[in-house]
Amino acid sequence: MNRIAPKITDVTSPANPVLKSLKALAEKKGRRAQGLFLAEGLRVCTEALAAGQVPHTLVFTPEAEAHPLTGALIRATAESRGTMLRTTPDLMQRLTGKANAAGVAAAYDIPSTELDRIDRTAAPLWLVAENLKDPGNFGTMLRTCDATGAGGVILLDQSCDPFSVEAVRASMGALFSRQVAQASAAEFFRWLRAGQHGVRGQLVGAALAGRTVDYRAHTYAAPCFLFMGNEQSGLPADHAAQCDALVKLPMHGTADSLNVAVCAGVLLYHALDRMAPA
Amino acid sequence: MNRIAPKITDVTSPANPVLKSLKALAEKKGRRAQGLFLAEGLRVCTEALAAGQVPHTLVFTPEAEAHPLTGALIRATAESRGTMLRTTPDLMQRLTGKANAAGVAAAYDIPSTELDRIDRTAAPLWLVAENLKDPGNFGTMLRTCDATGAGGVILLDQSCDPFSVEAVRASMGALFSRQVAQASAAEFFRWLRAGQHGVRGQLVGAALAGRTVDYRAHTYAAPCFLFMGNEQSGLPADHAAQCDALVKLPMHGTADSLNVAVCAGVLLYHALDRMAPA
Repeated sequence: MNRIAPKITDVTSPANPVLKSLKALAEKKGRRAQGLFLAEGLRVCTEALAAGQVPHTLVFTPEAEAHPLTGALIRATAESRGTMLRTTPDLMQRLTGKANAAGVAAAYDIPSTELDRIDRTAAPLWLVAENLKDPGNFGTMLRTCDATGAGGVILLDQSCDPFSVEAVRASMGALFSRQVAQASAAEFFRWLRAGQHGVRGQLVGAALAGRTVDYRAHTYAAPCFLFMGNEQSGLPADHAAQCDALVKLPMHGTADSLNVAVCAGVLLYHALDRMAPA
Repeated sequence: MNRIAPKITDVTSPANPVLKSLKALAEKKGRRAQGLFLAEGLRVCTEALAAGQVPHTLVFTPEAEAHPLTGALIRATAESRGTMLRTTPDLMQRLTGKANAAGVAAAYDIPSTELDRIDRTAAPLWLVAENLKDPGNFGTMLRTCDATGAGGVILLDQSCDPFSVEAVRASMGALFSRQVAQASAAEFFRWLRAGQHGVRGQLVGAALAGRTVDYRAHTYAAPCFLFMGNEQSGLPADHAAQCDALVKLPMHGTADSLNVAVCAGVLLYHALDRMAPA
C-alpha cells in the first residue's frame, strides 16, 4: 500500500487565504478566475466521488471528520494531492452563508460546457432551456434529469450560471452525474441539425400558444430534446418554429402558467413513460 | 353612477407611515400584527381582482398608473374605501426589495386558513404537505394546483408561512384562486376521517420507501389528497401508515430524490389525466 498521508491544515481565521479563495467562489467572477465551483454537504460530495469527481479543495469541521464518508473524501483528496482544511463550524457558516451549514464543503473543477462534448445518443431525453434565469429552476431541472435518466440540460443564450451556489444546491448532486452545456440558440440549432452517428433527434417545444398539441398526444422518440422557454416570456416564436412539435400541458386554472421546472418534470416523466419498453 | 372619487396620497418619503406598515409585511410579525400580506405586480393584482379580492392598500408608480388594468384596481380600491399611494420607482424598489420592482403592489387581507373552510368535494385533487419548509416550493405547488384545477394546499405541522413574500411570488396569483389551510397532522387525519357530505376521500402518499406502488399503477379517485413529505426527510412512517396508498416515481439516477414541487406536479398531472372523463 502506497497511500499518501493526508495533509490537513487547521484553519481558525477567516483571513486564511485558501478559505478566502473558496469564499470568492460565491461570485461568478471568483468562479471564472479560479475555474472552480463550490458544493456543500457530505451527501453531495459523496455523490461527486461516486461519479469520479475528486475535490480540488476539501473543507470540513472536526465533527464531520469523524464520519466514514468524510474519511473516504479525505483519502481521495489526499491521493489526488488536493488541498484540505479543517475548520470551525463558525467559519464553515461564513463560507457557505448558511445558518445551518453542512460540516463538509468542497471546490471542484468547473467542467467544459461545450455542446460538442455531448453525445446525444447517450440518453433518451435531454432538456434545452432558452434564457433560463433562475439558478434554482436550473438546478431543479438537472435534478429531475438525474431522476428520469435524462442526459442533462443545454442552456441557451443568456441563461443563468449553472455553477452558482444556488444552482449547485438545487441540483442536489446532479451536476456530477448529468451533463451541462452552454451555447447560443444558433449554435444549438446547427448542432442539432448536423446530427451525431447519423442521429438527429426530435426537438419538442413546451408552449402555451401556437400550433400546439396536448402533451399526451405527441409521440416522443429518443433522443428527444424537450425545449423550455424563459420563465417570463416562454419560447420565442422563431425558436418555436424550429421545433418538430409544440406540446402544451392543459391549464385548468386562471393563471395559464406553470413553473418551468415543474413543466419540465411533468414532460420528462410523461415522455419517459411513453418511450420506456413495456 | 355613484362612483367614489379615488383618494390617492402622493408619497415621496420612506418615512411615510403607510409605506412603512407595508414594508413591515415582509416579516411574519408584521403580517400577523396587521392581518395583511403583500402581493406585487399588475398581473397578480389583476388576477386577485378577477377572483374578487380587492386591495386593502394599493401602491403604484405614476408610470404604472397609466395602465388601464391599474385603473381598474384604483376604481375597485376606491369603491371599497381602501388606501391608495402613488409613489416613486425608488420607493417601490425599497418596498419590495427587488431591483426590478413592479409598478404595482397591494396589501390584501390574510384569509382564514382553517381546515373546516375547505369543501373537499369542490375539487378532484388536493395537495397535503407535511413540514414543508421552503416557501418557494409551497408557492410553486399552489401554482400547479391552479394549472391542474386542484383545490389547493393543506399545510401540516411546522410548514412555512403561506403568505410570505417568497411564497406569494412563487404562487403567481394562485393564492387568490386556490385554497390554503393550516393544521396539525392529527387535526388533518381527524378531519379526513370525519368526511363531508358522506365523502371521505383518498389519501395517497408520495414515498420512496415502504409498501409503495409505481405511481402509474394506482387508481386515483376524487377527491384525492396527494400527501407530500418534508423536503429533507420525506413522509414520516406514522403518516405513511395513514395513507390508502403510497406511490413512488421511478428513479433512474444516482440521487434517488426529486424536488417536492416537481414530484407534486408530476403526480397532479398524472392523476388529473387518469381521473378526467375520457
